[in-house]
Amino acid sequence: MKEITTAEFKARIKRFQHNIRTAGLDAALVHGNEADFANVRYLTEYWPTFEAAAVFVPARGTPVLIIGPESLTYAQGRSVVPTILKMVEYRESAEPQYPGIPVASYQDVVKRAMPGQKLRKLGIVAWSITTLPVWMRLQSDLPGVEFVKADDTLINLRIVKSPGEIALMKKAFEVSEIAIDAILGEIKPGMTELQVIGIAQREIYKHGGEYEGHALYCFCGPATNNAISRPTHNRIRKHEMIQLNIGARVGGYSSSVGLPFSIGKLPERKQCLLAFGLEAHLKTIDLMQAGKPAAAVVQEYEAWVKAQGFGRFMLYGPCHGIGMMEVERPWMESTSTYGLQENMTFQVDTFFYDKDFGLRWENGVRVKKGGVERLSHKYMKIVQL
Amino acid sequence: MKEITTAEFKARIKRFQHNIRTAGLDAALVHGNEADFANVRYLTEYWPTFEAAAVFVPARGTPVLIIGPESLTYAQGRSVVPTILKMVEYRESAEPQYPGIPVASYQDVVKRAMPGQKLRKLGIVAWSITTLPVWMRLQSDLPGVEFVKADDTLINLRIVKSPGEIALMKKAFEVSEIAIDAILGEIKPGMTELQVIGIAQREIYKHGGEYEGHALYCFCGPATNNAISRPTHNRIRKHEMIQLNIGARVGGYSSSVGLPFSIGKLPERKQCLLAFGLEAHLKTIDLMQAGKPAAAVVQEYEAWVKAQGFGRFMLYGPCHGIGMMEVERPWMESTSTYGLQENMTFQVDTFFYDKDFGLRWENGVRVKKGGVERLSHKYMKIVQL
Repeated sequence: MKEITTAEFKARIKRFQHNIRTAGLDAALVHGNEADFANVRYLTEYWPTFEAAAVFVPARGTPVLIIGPESLTYAQGRSVVPTILKMVEYRESAEPQYPGIPVASYQDVVKRAMPGQKLRKLGIVAWSITTLPVWMRLQSDLPGVEFVKADDTLINLRIVKSPGEIALMKKAFEVSEIAIDAILGEIKPGMTELQVIGIAQREIYKHGGEYEGHALYCFCGPATNNAISRPTHNRIRKHEMIQLNIGARVGGYSSSVGLPFSIGKLPERKQCLLAFGLEAHLKTIDLMQAGKPAAAVVQEYEAWVKAQGFGRFMLYGPCHGIGMMEVERPWMESTSTYGLQENMTFQVDTFFYDKDFGLRWENGVRVKKGGVERLSHKYMKIVQL
Repeated sequence: MKEITTAEFKARIKRFQHNIRTAGLDAALVHGNEADFANVRYLTEYWPTFEAAAVFVPARGTPVLIIGPESLTYAQGRSVVPTILKMVEYRESAEPQYPGIPVASYQDVVKRAMPGQKLRKLGIVAWSITTLPVWMRLQSDLPGVEFVKADDTLINLRIVKSPGEIALMKKAFEVSEIAIDAILGEIKPGMTELQVIGIAQREIYKHGGEYEGHALYCFCGPATNNAISRPTHNRIRKHEMIQLNIGARVGGYSSSVGLPFSIGKLPERKQCLLAFGLEAHLKTIDLMQAGKPAAAVVQEYEAWVKAQGFGRFMLYGPCHGIGMMEVERPWMESTSTYGLQENMTFQVDTFFYDKDFGLRWENGVRVKKGGVERLSHKYMKIVQL
């Protein structure tokens, strides 16, 4: 599986630098941690573990990858950006002191990235995960510099996917479907929800996945009315709703396939909402095409669900962006102000619930002229084992 | 497997409130995210997914769990702390707007936690992962309040483990050893590093694990000289160093077993450093006992390694705390100022490297009078398949 090329990484940095200049910034500082490393990996292919990381990108000059004190060999082997500095602010959350390991300051970073240039205004990207040690150090190292939230300068570049990105996402969805194939072949009443996840993990790594695309989940019975949750040692039972959300990560890109199903027949009331959920899921897919306002998709979907008499079972949905993160911008909400563009990728995410159960259909799509291309398709059907 | 009891959670909160008062604080705000949720889970058993979380604990009054907008059903099912409020600052990093979902302010939190009391000084716990949206909102919601880093008030409680915690850690180490048993039974030249991790993941979930204890890794060949890294699609080869670091999580508690081994004979030079590493690993274990200054363990260990002529191969070690996080306080460094106490738990972590390979032995121990109890023991031996 071909991953993102060095040329594509370089083109990303050029486009980002263009946006930095357009926003009137002298540079941007982009953050990533173990849980959301997407922006850092998008620019460098580096993917922190245990520690955090950042990329300092000047409007004109050389990007610098900033890592924690323990990751130098790893970062040198992986980063497309060759200039790498260590800073203690990106260390592990246990806050080791590392006596004897030399570390840099933000002044050192600025000198390397934009020698001879003056830094007046610095954009912060991934503001929502930027930490206090970073914030305090920026203020003490760079007095007089103005700091502003600048997520749009980078994250807007991630919304429309390249052919290379779409190929990785298709592979990731394919691996997720293989993992569900295996689960459906092996699941038995009495297994725990966590044991079901173990089957998926085995298959993800066996077939080319590099990690989970999100924290995987399987719930059975009343727990299926959780919008998000974690799997437990509860046992799978017959004639209950079983919810799978299985997402492989391939070459940095996430996927997730959500399948509600049962072993043996469900009671009529649950069967009915399950089938309606699938109909609503397909309805969203029908509503999407390049040029359409995102808010219109949401409004038409919600009006349709209400007209069918199912409005009270609807919590959530119908779509959010997917790419390096299983949930990334843009969300599709009634307040959204953007229009769908070709090669935007969305997770169609259809959640209905009642007091004692819930169900979520999830599949990926790529927006194109006149409609969408499905990134996953095998499990848009009623499954009853 | 019995997990931590509600009584133990309540006792933790009481001891924490005592520390909050002793530190002269009116309350503390404790943060957690998907990558380091330990402090939040330690107080509540709640473990965020997709979103972040916090616990507001007043010196006198009622703790409040603060969650993101999507997690209410999940948190109600899991949290030992019954008072739960949603705040938008703990949402997913993709920053959805959630039109129609009501959220709280820090003023609402303070009113619920300490009605009628005045908040003057608030301690921030898990400072290193506290984010800018939280920081900005604290300042706008609570003008005039003094904010101070207060990690010690809570994290010091986590360092000495209870019998319940130690039982969970033993189980986690046992599951990690079972996963290594399976890997050694199935690994073959030509398998990718990631496929090896898939075997471990399968076993972890099959035998009672709830998640990985840390991002698992397997490297082969030159990549073994990475102190930390992520596994790749590189293929396992004979007569090369293969490094496994496999850690199951059980009931919130992490483990990790590090085993360097080979398929077929290693060249003499690598075999020699491998064997010396194991000797050094056992040396650290011999040096530890309740009452000993942590810095003395490090100094004696380092002096011994140098006296044996292996100083230039030593990067790292010899120990760090382990518990809810695979790496947690206290680190054992030459600059450490604490003494070992009974029921502290450490990961003995012995890393040696040369230009073209490295090796890491890792096992857990519990400090006791006169020595340590080993939490894992099966793979403190030379393995050559």
